[in-house]
Amino acid sequence: MPIVSSLIRASTAALLLIGMTALATPAVAAERTAKSSVVIQVSESNPAIWNLALNNAKNIQQDLGKENTNIEIVAYGPGINMLKFDSEVAPRLKEASANGVALLACGNTMKNQKLTEKDLEGDVKVVKAGVIEIISKQREGWAYIKP
Amino acid sequence: MPIVSSLIRASTAALLLIGMTALATPAVAAERTAKSSVVIQVSESNPAIWNLALNNAKNIQQDLGKENTNIEIVAYGPGINMLKFDSEVAPRLKEASANGVALLACGNTMKNQKLTEKDLEGDVKVVKAGVIEIISKQREGWAYIKP
Amino acid sequence: MPIVSSLIRASTAALLLIGMTALATPAVAAERTAKSSVVIQVSESNPAIWNLALNNAKNIQQDLGKENTNIEIVAYGPGINMLKFDSEVAPRLKEASANGVALLACGNTMKNQKLTEKDLEGDVKVVKAGVIEIISKQREGWAYIKP
Repeated sequence: MPIVSSLIRASTAALLLIGMTALATPAVAAERTAKSSVVIQVSESNPAIWNLALNNAKNIQQDLGKENTNIEIVAYGPGINMLKFDSEVAPRLKEASANGVALLACGNTMKNQKLTEKDLEGDVKVVKAGVIEIISKQREGWAYIKP
Repeated sequence: MPIVSSLIRASTAALLLIGMTALATPAVAAERTAKSSVVIQVSESNPAIWNLALNNAKNIQQDLGKENTNIEIVAYGPGINMLKFDSEVAPRLKEASANGVALLACGNTMKNQKLTEKDLEGDVKVVKAGVIEIISKQREGWAYIKP
Repeated sequence: MPIVSSLIRASTAALLLIGMTALATPAVAAERTAKSSVVIQVSESNPAIWNLALNNAKNIQQDLGKENTNIEIVAYGPGINMLKFDSEVAPRLKEASANGVALLACGNTMKNQKLTEKDLEGDVKVVKAGVIEIISKQREGWAYIKP
């Protein structure tokens, strides 16, 4: 009977839709209840600020659990000094990196200051532009902290 | 007639779905058109910055109306000095609090500096970690200001 | 045949719903994949910070393409000095403005400092309150940078 089979198809479609609609809200919620993600900006050549940034990262991991967080420290402009191999906080950088904190140096700043990867602490990665990394992460829903 | 009643059920389901789908967008919109909410970070021991933070809170309330705003000032690291009972801006803290601005001190910073609630201005509340308070609010859609 | 036409109507409604539901996710995604928009806060009277803010704007435009970005520099408090006609960075302001970067001065700060538009560099616009401009943009999904 084509009418009945149409009805079944219509009902199936309706049920499928209920499922899809129901999923719509959790999809948004899931995004928000996922890992606490934060991008920490360092744009000053001030070791007190560097230590504050590293303390922030550490506190976030201790209080929320490493496995529940994504943390990036992005250094640009005068802040690039934080990530040099001879930085005052070099030992703390190694520790942060070992704990899963991403350490990112701004490629534009490095070009301006004629720095190469050899000038940086070993665990640091270079991104094209620090400011764009920070903007991109905010667009993806990451929180922003400038210590 | 079962076919007709099935049809009615299918149509009702379809209408319900139209309603549910239509509601999905307003739910997101409602969240965005609700109160203007902002978390203000103070992480420096600099009274000029403290006054700027308090001016920011005051301007937001004056221009948008207290009833349309949620404002938190979160102090951590060297910024904790702003919220001490003998802070230069203590009288302004009382005024801000009376106007509904939440004043929050970082519990981690207090532990590190061996401070207790008695060291703080009376209206200040303590949160476990200032930085996590700031991140959480941003995740809930609050704006972030670092004066 | 009313039963068949009802069925067709139900199926059409169902198909419409599939379309509407399918559109729900792209709508959110579209918002996120639109122009990279960023509000840059300047609240310090420090030419090094002003140059960093202007470098940030320039790098964003160079790396992402002017046509793919919205950039505002909002100055308030002591940061207002950046936007005065006799500012150290006045030539760079003209260049930024010519490149489509909006330069916005806080009206509240101007009132407090008894400044008028004549005191500002020619391309600067005045907003009622700098901090509210910054909050509003964040609510609209713009990223926030404090250099």
